[in-house]
Amino acid sequence: MSAQHFDEVPGRFKVRDLSLAAAGRHQIRLAEHEMPGLMALRAEYAAAQPLAGARIAGSLHMTVQTAVLIETLVALGAEVRWASCNIFSTQDEAAAAVAVGPNGTPEDPQGVPVFAWKGETLEEYWECTEQILLWPGEGPTMILDDGGDATLLVHLGVDFEAAGAVPADLAPGDPGYSHEYNVILGVLRRSLPVDGQRWTRIAQGIGGVSEETTTGVHRLYQLAEEGRLLFTAINVNDSVTKSKFDNKYGIRHSLPDGINRATDVLIGGKVAFVAGYGDVGKGAAESLRGQGARVIVSEIDPICALQAAMDGYEVARLEDVLGEADFFITTTGNKDVIRTEHMTRMKDKAVVGNIGHFDNEIDMAGLAAVPGARKTEIKPQVHEWTFPADGDRPARSIIVLSEGRLLNLGNATGHPSFVMSNSFSNQVIAQIELFRNAGAYPLGVHRLPKVLDEKVARLHLDALGVRLTQLSKEQAEYIGVDVAGPYKPEHYRY
Amino acid sequence: MSAQHFDEVPGRFKVRDLSLAAAGRHQIRLAEHEMPGLMALRAEYAAAQPLAGARIAGSLHMTVQTAVLIETLVALGAEVRWASCNIFSTQDEAAAAVAVGPNGTPEDPQGVPVFAWKGETLEEYWECTEQILLWPGEGPTMILDDGGDATLLVHLGVDFEAAGAVPADLAPGDPGYSHEYNVILGVLRRSLPVDGQRWTRIAQGIGGVSEETTTGVHRLYQLAEEGRLLFTAINVNDSVTKSKFDNKYGIRHSLPDGINRATDVLIGGKVAFVAGYGDVGKGAAESLRGQGARVIVSEIDPICALQAAMDGYEVARLEDVLGEADFFITTTGNKDVIRTEHMTRMKDKAVVGNIGHFDNEIDMAGLAAVPGARKTEIKPQVHEWTFPADGDRPARSIIVLSEGRLLNLGNATGHPSFVMSNSFSNQVIAQIELFRNAGAYPLGVHRLPKVLDEKVARLHLDALGVRLTQLSKEQAEYIGVDVAGPYKPEHYRY
Amino acid sequence: MSAQHFDEVPGRFKVRDLSLAAAGRHQIRLAEHEMPGLMALRAEYAAAQPLAGARIAGSLHMTVQTAVLIETLVALGAEVRWASCNIFSTQDEAAAAVAVGPNGTPEDPQGVPVFAWKGETLEEYWECTEQILLWPGEGPTMILDDGGDATLLVHLGVDFEAAGAVPADLAPGDPGYSHEYNVILGVLRRSLPVDGQRWTRIAQGIGGVSEETTTGVHRLYQLAEEGRLLFTAINVNDSVTKSKFDNKYGIRHSLPDGINRATDVLIGGKVAFVAGYGDVGKGAAESLRGQGARVIVSEIDPICALQAAMDGYEVARLEDVLGEADFFITTTGNKDVIRTEHMTRMKDKAVVGNIGHFDNEIDMAGLAAVPGARKTEIKPQVHEWTFPADGDRPARSIIVLSEGRLLNLGNATGHPSFVMSNSFSNQVIAQIELFRNAGAYPLGVHRLPKVLDEKVARLHLDALGVRLTQLSKEQAEYIGVDVAGPYKPEHYRY
Amino acid sequence: MSAQHFDEVPGRFKVRDLSLAAAGRHQIRLAEHEMPGLMALRAEYAAAQPLAGARIAGSLHMTVQTAVLIETLVALGAEVRWASCNIFSTQDEAAAAVAVGPNGTPEDPQGVPVFAWKGETLEEYWECTEQILLWPGEGPTMILDDGGDATLLVHLGVDFEAAGAVPADLAPGDPGYSHEYNVILGVLRRSLPVDGQRWTRIAQGIGGVSEETTTGVHRLYQLAEEGRLLFTAINVNDSVTKSKFDNKYGIRHSLPDGINRATDVLIGGKVAFVAGYGDVGKGAAESLRGQGARVIVSEIDPICALQAAMDGYEVARLEDVLGEADFFITTTGNKDVIRTEHMTRMKDKAVVGNIGHFDNEIDMAGLAAVPGARKTEIKPQVHEWTFPADGDRPARSIIVLSEGRLLNLGNATGHPSFVMSNSFSNQVIAQIELFRNAGAYPLGVHRLPKVLDEKVARLHLDALGVRLTQLSKEQAEYIGVDVAGPYKPEHYRY
Repeated sequence: MSAQHFDEVPGRFKVRDLSLAAAGRHQIRLAEHEMPGLMALRAEYAAAQPLAGARIAGSLHMTVQTAVLIETLVALGAEVRWASCNIFSTQDEAAAAVAVGPNGTPEDPQGVPVFAWKGETLEEYWECTEQILLWPGEGPTMILDDGGDATLLVHLGVDFEAAGAVPADLAPGDPGYSHEYNVILGVLRRSLPVDGQRWTRIAQGIGGVSEETTTGVHRLYQLAEEGRLLFTAINVNDSVTKSKFDNKYGIRHSLPDGINRATDVLIGGKVAFVAGYGDVGKGAAESLRGQGARVIVSEIDPICALQAAMDGYEVARLEDVLGEADFFITTTGNKDVIRTEHMTRMKDKAVVGNIGHFDNEIDMAGLAAVPGARKTEIKPQVHEWTFPADGDRPARSIIVLSEGRLLNLGNATGHPSFVMSNSFSNQVIAQIELFRNAGAYPLGVHRLPKVLDEKVARLHLDALGVRLTQLSKEQAEYIGVDVAGPYKPEHYRY
Repeated sequence: MSAQHFDEVPGRFKVRDLSLAAAGRHQIRLAEHEMPGLMALRAEYAAAQPLAGARIAGSLHMTVQTAVLIETLVALGAEVRWASCNIFSTQDEAAAAVAVGPNGTPEDPQGVPVFAWKGETLEEYWECTEQILLWPGEGPTMILDDGGDATLLVHLGVDFEAAGAVPADLAPGDPGYSHEYNVILGVLRRSLPVDGQRWTRIAQGIGGVSEETTTGVHRLYQLAEEGRLLFTAINVNDSVTKSKFDNKYGIRHSLPDGINRATDVLIGGKVAFVAGYGDVGKGAAESLRGQGARVIVSEIDPICALQAAMDGYEVARLEDVLGEADFFITTTGNKDVIRTEHMTRMKDKAVVGNIGHFDNEIDMAGLAAVPGARKTEIKPQVHEWTFPADGDRPARSIIVLSEGRLLNLGNATGHPSFVMSNSFSNQVIAQIELFRNAGAYPLGVHRLPKVLDEKVARLHLDALGVRLTQLSKEQAEYIGVDVAGPYKPEHYRY
Repeated sequence: MSAQHFDEVPGRFKVRDLSLAAAGRHQIRLAEHEMPGLMALRAEYAAAQPLAGARIAGSLHMTVQTAVLIETLVALGAEVRWASCNIFSTQDEAAAAVAVGPNGTPEDPQGVPVFAWKGETLEEYWECTEQILLWPGEGPTMILDDGGDATLLVHLGVDFEAAGAVPADLAPGDPGYSHEYNVILGVLRRSLPVDGQRWTRIAQGIGGVSEETTTGVHRLYQLAEEGRLLFTAINVNDSVTKSKFDNKYGIRHSLPDGINRATDVLIGGKVAFVAGYGDVGKGAAESLRGQGARVIVSEIDPICALQAAMDGYEVARLEDVLGEADFFITTTGNKDVIRTEHMTRMKDKAVVGNIGHFDNEIDMAGLAAVPGARKTEIKPQVHEWTFPADGDRPARSIIVLSEGRLLNLGNATGHPSFVMSNSFSNQVIAQIELFRNAGAYPLGVHRLPKVLDEKVARLHLDALGVRLTQLSKEQAEYIGVDVAGPYKPEHYRY
Repeated sequence: MSAQHFDEVPGRFKVRDLSLAAAGRHQIRLAEHEMPGLMALRAEYAAAQPLAGARIAGSLHMTVQTAVLIETLVALGAEVRWASCNIFSTQDEAAAAVAVGPNGTPEDPQGVPVFAWKGETLEEYWECTEQILLWPGEGPTMILDDGGDATLLVHLGVDFEAAGAVPADLAPGDPGYSHEYNVILGVLRRSLPVDGQRWTRIAQGIGGVSEETTTGVHRLYQLAEEGRLLFTAINVNDSVTKSKFDNKYGIRHSLPDGINRATDVLIGGKVAFVAGYGDVGKGAAESLRGQGARVIVSEIDPICALQAAMDGYEVARLEDVLGEADFFITTTGNKDVIRTEHMTRMKDKAVVGNIGHFDNEIDMAGLAAVPGARKTEIKPQVHEWTFPADGDRPARSIIVLSEGRLLNLGNATGHPSFVMSNSFSNQVIAQIELFRNAGAYPLGVHRLPKVLDEKVARLHLDALGVRLTQLSKEQAEYIGVDVAGPYKPEHYRY
């Protein structure tokens, strides 16, 4: 990344090209209509400005929907700096529009510093992550994280500062080496010699982090268990209005969308294999059945397996259906779910895609190493992998989507705005809680109180024409709840 | 109840008519095939006899499925006494078969003492409940409860014994009076003068209770909160393999079954209103849609309301759809959900039924008090209530199922065996835990550990042809679980 | 059948027991509410009396719904005589109520002569069929037939009269012998010596027949092709509002109803095999899927097979799924679909039922002949057939419903009233057409004009809350139809 | 259109840019895998060359799928010339690949003359249509038509030649004037002075036309009724494997695909209005429900309305749901279904699209004329129409897809290959029938014999893993069919 990206407007780091801002603004305006939760929060808190004084460092896919989130945080009084949490996921026009701001112009941008563009290198990515934490003057008061990269950088910086050691430049073969890890260390190799307390100061200023996804939450629980967590955390991922909506209904929308845009292949009448029947798998299976496919599910958890069977799906193992399925979709969040031993034996022209989370659910590295395998780009993010004939098996090919990464992001546009409005309303409320109600969240990993989860749901009902029934006082007492909620015990599963 | 029921075989309280035993035994044999969880537990524990020495007082609908449960407990070594938890729900042939036992004869019964028959009076009902707790010699070591009546009787007895006061015979108008409450006090009015420490001794001997349903669990949590809980409790109701199976998939089966047997009215093409979108409501709505009805849901909880909308249902208030719906089904577990102001304004010949839990979900008392309302029995458990013309509204009638009580029990045969095998496997495992692993369950209300919940699911997979996928060691480590489970965090919602 | 059934009221043949009439009347009143088509026809034609002077001989299951049909015909002016078309299908209370009539009493019956009761012998059955054709004075002007038995008797009578030969009493081994055929000939052996022109006269008086089902229609087309058809016929079966409603939506309702009442076995999560994907198969598969079963379909017709696949069902052959399916349902209208070679190899306790039409879809005769097979009655119409161990195959049993006959009639109550209202409205309109508009239907087999089919549909919309859109004159012209319909070309498939 | 398009290779009319051919060839290869019907026909007829000597003038969307159709016709021996039947629907890379041919190169094209590119003017369009009919030497022996434009041009040419009159250049206001009609006349104004018998000769050489769609078929039936049909016609549209697959399952795939690509708006939880419940409407409603929308249907035909209700949809009129629905989709094939009076009163940001057929289903002309309405392009084929505030109604906007034309073609890629393989297999078989079996199709409009329809289905079963059941000889006789089919009477509705 060259200075040009940082210095266009002095003191203000910028996306590369502000000329896209008008297009982005138009899309943001349409998205606002589909994000009633965020717009309702703006209306509710416009006067109170609960985030006045807050400085929020955000690391989350820089999309049109995120733009509505960012501008909601700003509307509630916060200062914000933003990076994406994925090198490919930035929508440049959204980034530009946010940087310009609703009332600025490309010539006189008045928006939020955005450190993100589509197609960053790993080096650029981690430099961007660093930038959102380097506030002019004081550091951030909160992190809004997706996957935990911003939180990781702070924790790693504090560790090395505590050890007083500039990290070494690792090479392949060194213990702990991975390319990306060494890039992260590179950020610290630059910062520690300059300021040996920078990350310690930043960590001390942070009142908490709100985390968006399973992966990031998993890291946070590990830090907490190990006693290494530096600031409190709110687990947004496990709000009902996140996990049961984003994961299930978002996937129901974006899985067939991604398959269609990638392949134009008929789904109806075909056999679709779905690995995993958690929330993502449930949404995936429902959407494929809704298109007329016959869905076969695999599971490692007997409870989820039983649910799949009771929902009318065949439950089998991947190795049993290789010659039968036309689509193979992973939703597990585990690694090595589809392996080369599977891919080389699939039906000719089978479509293989991942909508779980990790890009190692499909063994892409192994695939590249299959002797004789040849990769042909059909179009960006859609590749045909051809395997040579082998004994009695004729040559055949499979179609791999998004190089094994999340196909709904790579081949379509991710979750639609309405779904993200649920997730992001949780984020906004979590940020308010961390800033205004810190006492309720001692050091540790917390979920939002159920009544706030219910509030997020409530904000989305009008847009769907839902008319809620009101409990009478007598009825509320009868079941032992407050008329205003929360209505269910903590362990309720929805 | 006269002595004849208690004394047929000295020392052994009996169902009324053992001649039904052969029919019941045949049904039990067929049910065993549909209860693979219980049969697997028999096979697994036949040698170890983990319940040897246990004395289990069971209060749960005395059906064919319960017979398989009882005989499983016996096969694991327990002594058992049984009553129903509902005056109407006993299947007499099942009761007779259990009393006779698999190897006994009506002339030489060798089974379990069963204090239950179809159509008990309230007085008989509570006397039966008392009998299961009055073990010859020592008292029970555990209670297996459904709705909490056995537990209630013990707690009430202890309270009065502690107070040293024989309860008064209440009359309408007295504080706290209800007919049933006074009947319960009647049991104590008889026992206290005879033995002022009976219930205290019984309570001391009880190592714990496993409770089947929401209502009973609710009572237990209240007792625990008030510090009045006398022995530890396992909440079987909130095992995933209970709440997400019994409540959802059981209802999906038994709701249309009940409606069909009661009315023979076409469901397809009609409008069905379902009050509540919890697990029961979800199963109800799915089953009605599966028959081609257009389903309208009401909810008081915004999260469940949002789920209903996302599942494609209209969400409205009861008062908005009175003239539109052909079926009105309650699933809430709350009271006064359908009131007379609703019933008198429904579409002519609307079918009204309750599959929630409490018989006050539909205001049956109010219905009987509507001026001019006339009740006609169409067949047992199906009544037409006719309302006179009123102003511009012509005379009309509605069809009320099971007098407002659970229609799947009243108009059909309740949940099918396979569903109950899930619930009852949890019960058996809970009883083993209480008896063998008491240290793990200090005084309080507990759910079963997730790994046992997963075990219950696992026992039901083969029968459905499910082939489970096995985690590799590397995969298990990667997601931080054991290869053998449990696979999910406690807060996971399935 | 003894004289007592014929002579209770002189000149009037009666059902056996009129004391059931009150119960039947109550059910008829409720059914009228669910048969809006018939009630609308009564309202429309009350004044015009289009069937005044018509004499209708009806042969169709004597159920509550048929009672509403009969009384509609009477309300339109017809004289009617009725028999059932199946020895088991009569609902005695309905028969009694019709015989008594809406304004009569058991002591002073004023209804329609009904020659039907539940559980006729074959001899009684054909004598009843004969009776509906023997009008005092003149013979019938029309037949309303279901399966073609009344029509068959007339044709057979005419044939023998033309040949001038009294049929011989056949014995097993004689050419053409079957038990039932010989019973039919018995009717003619009695009538021909008495009156050698009776059937010829009756045939000459008949203006036409309206036929309800596939089987009967098939016979009519054969007669027409062979040039032997004696009077014109309207094929009611192939009205859209019959075949696409009765066959599909009726089955969707009554298949799970029949299974549930017969077995109480959970359908959800199980594997259900459905032979045939015609209209009946489509309704069957949808209903089982709607209960959460995984459905596997078999087909002989590649178009229907492709439809099944596109609707998301696995399409396989019966022999491939014997060990996998829990339910085996036939819907084909062909013979020998499930054979003993299949039944002896099914999963233990598999449920086997027929909802197609012919009682030979399942080879019941072969089943009885399987060496060592043992039949146990679980309850009426539900039998367990146990096969002895055979080599490596352990002993096992299957559950056969309704002895291989239509399970929705045998184990439940057949199609619900609303569905029959569609079919029967077609019947009423067909009878009016035959009587009032005979010129439009020259000798042959006709379907009702599409505009009358549309009329039947129209009569059922209000009850379902449907609001129809009105074509403008310009729109109608644009697509070349009349504003009032018919709206589709003859070959349109709906 | 300039000479450059016609003369690049002498004697061979060309698409504009052959450099796209490689990309097109790759897509064709993938499409061939999804078009098993066409590939099976190639295999079956490779040796026999049934179309040797045939000259086929094709007018049908020049897409990748059509490329597989064209090359199948060539593989069966035909000479082919091709134009698109829509000015926007050509996929240029497919056109280029066909022109180059599987064995040619852009420098040495050896394929089929293709007169089509994306974005033709109306003048270019009709000139292209003219070109496919102007064979060097003799004229075409058959037309393969979609919408009937090629057939129309021939008929119009013959009419004017018969009248011996060169058509006048019409202007707005002249009787019969429309812009497009005058463009067509322009073709004749050029040809008639040059050769007054050209179209007459062409018509005489044509042995028949096979027509793809409802619109074209409608025109053919009109010509036949008026006695003006010049050559026989096969109605491919009403093959079951066309109308019940293309219309229903194709739409089920391409409707949500088009909405998603156009708007990225969540469908789940929303209210979707579908005008029409024919085959297209059935597919549309199913797909939207499958995505979790609540679907409301409108109908003018009471039979289809009753079907919609029985399938669980609310049936209402458009004017009743304007404020409730989020999506408004037309599927009727009629005009003025959504009018300005509707559009100006819809919910803010409602999405409006047409997937029926005619671009006047939505009154786009009226929309443009709404006072104050403003059109903003969001992206190509997606426009926001903003209406000013009006009295108490605030300003609002709607999103109109594809300017009111078919949204699955305009916003997505039309039907997927597998669906088109069904339709196009019918086309190939129809062309063979017209060329080889002409005697069976006297002048008139015919459907393909059912046995050929079944053949098309049969060719697609293997690819879906369907195993067909074989009728035994006895079974076939029992139901009166041949073992090899056809299996159903002509009036069967599937």
